[in-house]
Amino acid sequence: MGEKINHKWCLVRCPIGLIKISDFEWREEPISQLGANEILVRIIYLSLDPANRGWVTEGKSYVPPVEIGAVMRGITIGVVEKSNNSAFQDGDIVQGMLGWQEYADTDGKGLTKLSVDPSFPLTAYLGLFGIVGPTAYFGLLEIGNPKKGETLVVSGAAGAVGSLVGQIGKIKDCRVVGIAGSDEKCRWINEKLGFDAAINYKTESVPERLQELCPNGIDVFFDNVGGKTLDAVLSLINVGARVVICGMISQYNAVKPVPGPYNFRTILTQRARVEGFIVLDYTDRYDEAYRQMEILTIWQ
Amino acid sequence: MGEKINHKWCLVRCPIGLIKISDFEWREEPISQLGANEILVRIIYLSLDPANRGWVTEGKSYVPPVEIGAVMRGITIGVVEKSNNSAFQDGDIVQGMLGWQEYADTDGKGLTKLSVDPSFPLTAYLGLFGIVGPTAYFGLLEIGNPKKGETLVVSGAAGAVGSLVGQIGKIKDCRVVGIAGSDEKCRWINEKLGFDAAINYKTESVPERLQELCPNGIDVFFDNVGGKTLDAVLSLINVGARVVICGMISQYNAVKPVPGPYNFRTILTQRARVEGFIVLDYTDRYDEAYRQMEILTIWQ
Repeated sequence: MGEKINHKWCLVRCPIGLIKISDFEWREEPISQLGANEILVRIIYLSLDPANRGWVTEGKSYVPPVEIGAVMRGITIGVVEKSNNSAFQDGDIVQGMLGWQEYADTDGKGLTKLSVDPSFPLTAYLGLFGIVGPTAYFGLLEIGNPKKGETLVVSGAAGAVGSLVGQIGKIKDCRVVGIAGSDEKCRWINEKLGFDAAINYKTESVPERLQELCPNGIDVFFDNVGGKTLDAVLSLINVGARVVICGMISQYNAVKPVPGPYNFRTILTQRARVEGFIVLDYTDRYDEAYRQMEILTIWQ
Repeated sequence: MGEKINHKWCLVRCPIGLIKISDFEWREEPISQLGANEILVRIIYLSLDPANRGWVTEGKSYVPPVEIGAVMRGITIGVVEKSNNSAFQDGDIVQGMLGWQEYADTDGKGLTKLSVDPSFPLTAYLGLFGIVGPTAYFGLLEIGNPKKGETLVVSGAAGAVGSLVGQIGKIKDCRVVGIAGSDEKCRWINEKLGFDAAINYKTESVPERLQELCPNGIDVFFDNVGGKTLDAVLSLINVGARVVICGMISQYNAVKPVPGPYNFRTILTQRARVEGFIVLDYTDRYDEAYRQMEILTIWQ
């Protein structure tokens, strides 16, 4: 294997504000001899997700931050090129946190061997059948608990998670309003995904449009972004509303402390429930989500 | 009844910031003839609660604000002096929202006829056996869901609700840390009520003391005050923590919008649940709380 060269992006400093290219270093190194029980994986796909920003922020979080000098963490799909581990064979397709690099040698812990259905693109195993699908599925159904006829609002609605959340919301007979960042995205979620309405937060007033589009108030908010959007929604929540805090994309690059929502008080007056959600708590149940979600065909 | 005179405090303007005496007017008027089905109640006790401030704040809340010109809303205990209503007899002791006045004529709707146990002071029916008791009971047990060995923090800990919450927390085998506003209050909750520790937020650093007193983090926070206290607690919550938003006393007099907690992000990273709670949603179950809470004897 000595002739093979690996290329990888390593984190060299903790980013402040927007990530800069200089926070990373592109490194080239020969692939070392495989140890006992190790496998060599050639990475085919790398998923770039908003959550990645949180992984390079100092401080307590749901996973430890990436160490300075280490390869940047990332969810990947790869193919096993060589195996010293009886649990893996050459040619196996695997999914896991192998990071921003071309090759990974690993003992295979934490990797999922995929039974690839050739009628799906391989990237579906980073989306619907990766952790994106279960995020939308468990976050909405277990935490958001949407009921027929309720109004569901989704932020980051054209994103990987948000676009699925809205579709599940429609299956659950909710009125679904999505918030996204371009007219093209809004058209896509409206016309292709069947959302009832969409708001372009870059060109429209979110508070005003929400008021127009949610005449019966808001029962469930699936929030990927936080900040002003969350504030606008909180001013319109109904009694007993559920707010799923799945992400806070608007704040990941903040360089100074960001205040929480000004409309926090409506959590009290409306007896709302605001709950944080990390899909990793549902690892044992991913298959349940995958079975249910085969009916969603956004990749077509 | 023409000779009897009623005195009452009426709201004459919507208070801005701290309530001023000029926001109210002391009015004197003869008690009018009782109508069919009405009763006349002489008010014996009036409960003055932090929640009253919210009732004179404009805007959507869990109850409509007191109308300008109307008698100020308040929870009272009174005795029926005359009854044209077969459901009430002279001498009945009643509890309900009869307001800041000496006499009330009412059709009796919303009033609770009390079966007074003479071994309790009558004021207990504004506290433990009023709505204070169920607030502590259902707020902590249904929303906070404390488990043996967990750490429970209570703000407004020497208040009517907070002092009960801490005692219930001890019965549930939690480590209970209270936050209150004087050394005397702190001594009381420590020595008389059996809290494990108390913080005087006026003389001590709440973030530092919480860190010292909650070495295993915080699992349940019963919050009556909001603001900086909530922020300090959020920085220390454990995975799966429950935050009961029962009140936001620190913000009731705010004259401009108050930001939510700066540590809002820990709701996500710790998968915490923050839930608003209004005891009026549990009216049907008050008796359950009363039966259970007879063992608490704070009035002795």
